[in-house]
Amino acid sequence: MPVFLDAAQPDFETAFTALLNAKREDSPDVDAIVAGIIADVRARGNEAVLELTEKFDRLKLDADSLRFSPEEIEAHCATVPNAEREALELAAERIRAYHARQMPSDDSWTDSSGATLGWRWTAVSAAGLYVPGGLASYPSSVLMNAIPAKVAGVERLAIAVPTPDDVVNPLVLLAAKISGVDEIYRMGGAQAIAALAYGTETIAPVDKITGPGNAFVAAAKRRVFGKVGIDMIAGPSEILVIADADNDPDWIALDLMSQAEHDESAQSLLITTDAGFGRAVAAAVDKRLETLERRAIAGASWRDYGAIITVRDLDEAAELSNRIAPEHLELCVADPEALAGKCPHAGAIFLGQWTPEAIGDYVGGPNHVLPTARSARFSSGLSVMDFVKRTTMARMTPEALRAIGPAAEVLATSESLEAHGLSVTARLKKLNG
Amino acid sequence: MPVFLDAAQPDFETAFTALLNAKREDSPDVDAIVAGIIADVRARGNEAVLELTEKFDRLKLDADSLRFSPEEIEAHCATVPNAEREALELAAERIRAYHARQMPSDDSWTDSSGATLGWRWTAVSAAGLYVPGGLASYPSSVLMNAIPAKVAGVERLAIAVPTPDDVVNPLVLLAAKISGVDEIYRMGGAQAIAALAYGTETIAPVDKITGPGNAFVAAAKRRVFGKVGIDMIAGPSEILVIADADNDPDWIALDLMSQAEHDESAQSLLITTDAGFGRAVAAAVDKRLETLERRAIAGASWRDYGAIITVRDLDEAAELSNRIAPEHLELCVADPEALAGKCPHAGAIFLGQWTPEAIGDYVGGPNHVLPTARSARFSSGLSVMDFVKRTTMARMTPEALRAIGPAAEVLATSESLEAHGLSVTARLKKLNG
Repeated sequence: MPVFLDAAQPDFETAFTALLNAKREDSPDVDAIVAGIIADVRARGNEAVLELTEKFDRLKLDADSLRFSPEEIEAHCATVPNAEREALELAAERIRAYHARQMPSDDSWTDSSGATLGWRWTAVSAAGLYVPGGLASYPSSVLMNAIPAKVAGVERLAIAVPTPDDVVNPLVLLAAKISGVDEIYRMGGAQAIAALAYGTETIAPVDKITGPGNAFVAAAKRRVFGKVGIDMIAGPSEILVIADADNDPDWIALDLMSQAEHDESAQSLLITTDAGFGRAVAAAVDKRLETLERRAIAGASWRDYGAIITVRDLDEAAELSNRIAPEHLELCVADPEALAGKCPHAGAIFLGQWTPEAIGDYVGGPNHVLPTARSARFSSGLSVMDFVKRTTMARMTPEALRAIGPAAEVLATSESLEAHGLSVTARLKKLNG
Repeated sequence: MPVFLDAAQPDFETAFTALLNAKREDSPDVDAIVAGIIADVRARGNEAVLELTEKFDRLKLDADSLRFSPEEIEAHCATVPNAEREALELAAERIRAYHARQMPSDDSWTDSSGATLGWRWTAVSAAGLYVPGGLASYPSSVLMNAIPAKVAGVERLAIAVPTPDDVVNPLVLLAAKISGVDEIYRMGGAQAIAALAYGTETIAPVDKITGPGNAFVAAAKRRVFGKVGIDMIAGPSEILVIADADNDPDWIALDLMSQAEHDESAQSLLITTDAGFGRAVAAAVDKRLETLERRAIAGASWRDYGAIITVRDLDEAAELSNRIAPEHLELCVADPEALAGKCPHAGAIFLGQWTPEAIGDYVGGPNHVLPTARSARFSSGLSVMDFVKRTTMARMTPEALRAIGPAAEVLATSESLEAHGLSVTARLKKLNG
């Protein structure tokens, strides 16, 4: 049973705060092990990667077979049925079209002092994408990470995917191929992150690493951060649905379960203006939980972290939503745009009852890598921006330096940075004769 | 003496790689102490902050005096001489004008399926800015951090600045006032970061923390990351000057020294197409080091990490620059724009001999908080983008769902996420039935 809360009750604030602060994830402390693995890969390169792959993935490779050959990739891709291939292609096309609009623009202008100022965006040269093996090996995540990188102009995009017992998900390889990935390596865990960050004899190092992974992968990404860029460390998935009574309870139940089925630590929340509708959704969830394939996982998530909150009106719903700052926010109300305008803090918003969150996971176009654990208050989902960086540009003329240089001299002196000031003074002296 | 390298020599690659990999910073491991301080502030709030302030800053405050009152701020600001006030105001105006152009745009469009897609940018609600006390208490850094936040639309901007022995830099308070900062607290170190991240009885928590600091501050920022957003953890400053023989060696020497004087771990590099010019710059540096106020620091930096590299031509200079990925890149050559086009990896570029890097530190307009330690390969300087976040938006019509929903069903099935698929299926059934 999920928690039922009523914002009109006097104990609501206490219960809601408890819900906000519930710790849903208990990462094992694997940092020492990961530090050892990274040091080993840095010291011994491929030899270390191959040994660890044999140990953890029960797979004996050599420096050549560590990387999928073009023929292997083709052979695996050829096994994918047409329906899946077409679905991946449709998804890729829509994701590409959406992300192409995200490319930021350069700018350059000359101001009244005569100074020419601006900035320039350029792509990261090489990026690495981690793809988990086993159950969580999602081809959709390959599209969501690889396409923004390629749209940004990343020249070299390498994937690391573990293939335990030599089991490969052909859809992952096909998604990589469709996205334009350049290299695919059979490796996983902290050793894969280390190999991407520091390079080996046969793997050139990358500048940025993205993609989800288990506790070892997350700890390794934290450790190589600084040497390379990383994306966020994602927590368990969340959805908040705000729905009025004018919805089908079963649709909302399925939307809640589509988060809950990801992970026992996932969180599915419903805020509704109608307590009776809330009860109907709870009943619909219970019914779906009788038959869902992943009912054990979804049921545990719903039982431990689910909640149905009744509010007086949609303004109160928006207020609570902003405190939750959900990863996914589904607005199943008569005027979803108006409500969205009151909900600034959310990773992605799904407007109206015809937009189930699952559309966003696959084919909508926006990215499904989104900020979790209330971090939508200060961060954004994955985008083209994660694969470009900005260089600021400035050019002074002698006149511009004469106009603004003296202020720089004053500030340099006030900060006791004499050489800063003198670098301006020496030039002004020449100008002033 | 700095290192002299010649790219034409056979041992160059080894020496250059050593230069690239030189470890310039040795952070003391203060993580355990910092963890204790954060836990203490979380548990005891103001009481802990006040105790630690008395201990480290020799300053006895209470919950009221922890925050500067408007009258105190006014009184300190009134002591700033006019020249400094005007210089700060000019700098602020130019920084504001530059950053105002960085505000990203919302987008929304309807595609051929009938789906309406887009995104929306909103500001972080509350931000905290750390300002070091003592020698490194730079008013220019207050402008560079606070103005982008206010341009982005951050409603509540709080500063933490330690005031050891009750010594206050009035220029810091004036810079805060000019930038529109809302709250200023007399606190420093890990306790200040903890108070901003978790809040106390009288300090509301913020969503994002930026600003430089010592090892304790850096470790505390790393620890609260996730609970709040943080900016980069900056390393020691660096400059690379690429200059041909058509420059005044003394100007270039001063530009190199304006980085070196920051910190013994700073790095100043010169790449030149003319070995004789390189020797002239070295001589000019030696001469300046006889009299510079901060000659001890600048001299140590130049001796330990400085280098003068001779190259055959500017293409070779660009190649080396891209491997260095410098924080500051000064291009003192005949056609600096052309050379800049070949140097994608740099935090900020200063074009031509009339643009000393110090202009960018104070009054140019671009931000002076820039990626160090080769991270310009994958990251950018501070900007308005650090204080906004993007929410992606999607709205399906029944027709759009009919067009792209089936592909989502196929992919959900292939990923064994049944509820994802059913949330689409249930809606399509209604449409088709």
